[in-house]
Amino acid sequence: MKTYNVVLLPGDGIGPEIMDVATKTIDYVAQKYNFGIEYEQKLIGGSAIDKYNDPLPEETLKACKSSDAVLLSAIGSPKYDALPREKRPESGLLNLRSGLGLFANIRPVKVWPALISESSLKQEIVQNVDLVVVRELTGGIYFGQPKGRLQSENGERAFNTMTYSTMEIDRIARVAFELATDRKKKLCSIDKANVLDVSQLWRERVIELSYNFPKVELNHLYVDNAAMQLIRQPDQFDVILTGNLFGDIISDEAAMLTGSIGMLPSASLRLEGPGLFEPVHGSAPDIANKDIANPMAMVLSAAMMLRVGLKENNAADDLENAIDKVLKDGYRTSDLMTNGKKVLGCREMGEQILMSL
Amino acid sequence: MKTYNVVLLPGDGIGPEIMDVATKTIDYVAQKYNFGIEYEQKLIGGSAIDKYNDPLPEETLKACKSSDAVLLSAIGSPKYDALPREKRPESGLLNLRSGLGLFANIRPVKVWPALISESSLKQEIVQNVDLVVVRELTGGIYFGQPKGRLQSENGERAFNTMTYSTMEIDRIARVAFELATDRKKKLCSIDKANVLDVSQLWRERVIELSYNFPKVELNHLYVDNAAMQLIRQPDQFDVILTGNLFGDIISDEAAMLTGSIGMLPSASLRLEGPGLFEPVHGSAPDIANKDIANPMAMVLSAAMMLRVGLKENNAADDLENAIDKVLKDGYRTSDLMTNGKKVLGCREMGEQILMSL
Ligand SMILES: CC(C)[C@H](C(=O)O)[C@@H](O)C(=O)O
Ligand SMILES: CC(C)[C@H](C(=O)O)[C@@H](O)C(=O)O
Repeated sequence: MKTYNVVLLPGDGIGPEIMDVATKTIDYVAQKYNFGIEYEQKLIGGSAIDKYNDPLPEETLKACKSSDAVLLSAIGSPKYDALPREKRPESGLLNLRSGLGLFANIRPVKVWPALISESSLKQEIVQNVDLVVVRELTGGIYFGQPKGRLQSENGERAFNTMTYSTMEIDRIARVAFELATDRKKKLCSIDKANVLDVSQLWRERVIELSYNFPKVELNHLYVDNAAMQLIRQPDQFDVILTGNLFGDIISDEAAMLTGSIGMLPSASLRLEGPGLFEPVHGSAPDIANKDIANPMAMVLSAAMMLRVGLKENNAADDLENAIDKVLKDGYRTSDLMTNGKKVLGCREMGEQILMSL
Repeated sequence: MKTYNVVLLPGDGIGPEIMDVATKTIDYVAQKYNFGIEYEQKLIGGSAIDKYNDPLPEETLKACKSSDAVLLSAIGSPKYDALPREKRPESGLLNLRSGLGLFANIRPVKVWPALISESSLKQEIVQNVDLVVVRELTGGIYFGQPKGRLQSENGERAFNTMTYSTMEIDRIARVAFELATDRKKKLCSIDKANVLDVSQLWRERVIELSYNFPKVELNHLYVDNAAMQLIRQPDQFDVILTGNLFGDIISDEAAMLTGSIGMLPSASLRLEGPGLFEPVHGSAPDIANKDIANPMAMVLSAAMMLRVGLKENNAADDLENAIDKVLKDGYRTSDLMTNGKKVLGCREMGEQILMSL
């Protein structure tokens, strides 16, 4: 029997509760499709700070590196806001991404028909939305050097560097072109080439690469225009390619089009080696330990891990179909509109998903 | 009789057509309220490149500097895309902003009741939207040094610097706090302080300044979350304060909530000296010279110039009321939904506005 080594990072806030639901569903489909999963649970973010005073302990990174895939819930809490940035939960996540070399963040955005009324946009605007944001994740202004603070004639001055090399642009653009090739063959690259040198190089390289993918229709949007187009007519997009900072903003904007970020998974990948799978939503410390969190994005992240990370497509299909069934049967968590629907707690929703498998 | 010196910058694309409408309405209210306007028309953007090979000729900047206010239509055309960035129309605008020291960009976003169906968002989500984005306009990554390209071990590498000093942050934050004081006393500052050093300084200074404005309720959002909140519940915002790049993205996103960026004016200001007033929309080269452009944002920019730049509040009120009347009377331009409405060309719409004055 094939056995996979999966590192679990429950993280902070609602993380442990929703992870619990996800592992139960994974166990179920593993048994059904006859593969084994060995879990290793590790600390990251706030929980790691509490125990080791370090948001990404060495042993967590080491375990992730030698795993087949990493499943993360969410990190962060206002509790740590006063700490210096390198000591905060977010640094654990950033260091995990760069430590594993996960340069490609993949965020599919699709509206669940049963949840279409959740969106703050009109139904006809969002009903055909089916896009994927491909965000560069280990470069750009998130990691650029130099950065810091210094004294200047105008008082203190702080600075960061947004930078990309042709190598970094080419490898993420290739991921996006390949994904577009497998989908509707439309790629939109987002930059600010009318102002930024780094965006100009970005655009040049993307155009250069496009000659290798003649079947993919490429267009470019300035990031400000992209932020508008996503609201105006989001179904014009298939695959969106962009850098780390623009991708952070644009992918969250795209996620919110659905009205339910409690339903969206993501993958962070490199060419070879373990990927990281996590929901798009955060750790929601305000509702932690109340058994009201929505575990569905977490289960869908597990499905993405099974499909993309472990190539267990049938198991992934089952999880996604179970979510679909639960929604169609009228079950909701309290973050989703509840008019005439049955509201379940986190654990109950987990049981409902299991019963639908 | 008081006489104002106004520099007109019709720019490119639909710019001249809509400027024509705006000056006619200004002339009308000037006569009514008994003040004089002396126009000086200058070139900027593509039209300046065509004539002087320079997107901001020295004489344009000089005229603007010694004026009472500058009224700009829009610049840009794909025709100039192949030029180096410093030679493109956008550089004319950026150099005008920095040349005049216009560090404060003010963009009000309000839904016109008659146009509420234009929005791609649900009516109940947008009907109470009434916010102003205050964007820092002469600093940040738009102007940060160093920037450029170099050879590296990973091929070519391009870079820009995002930087702010306490002086730059304090003066724009003060504008936002004062504006919030005159409005609903809510200020939301947008940054990425969980990742960027420059955002950390930004947040520290904004907090520091808030002690001088105890009546203003201040909160902070990370830019990715802000991009979501604007879609989820845009009426939670009153005044939004942010840097140059985040402001570019967030203000366009906010503008699109209304569904009709053909209706939105903006002001770019400094503490003393002439301000720049312009519509939020672009030069729309595809519909130039077809007499179908929407001149209303241009007229509203003229109103903003009259109110903020020249303190002719009655004249400004009249222009805004005329637009309101035209809309209520069912007149539209072709960019706006036309079900059962009367569609007018640019010139006709100008006449209709004049008749409503
Ligand atoms: C938590 C934060 C550092 C992170 C980011 O900015 O990348 C988050 O917003 C995300 O998009 O995964
Ligand atoms: C034309 C461009 C340089 C400009 C900007 O990015 O500032 C525009 O998008 C704006 O917002 O006024």
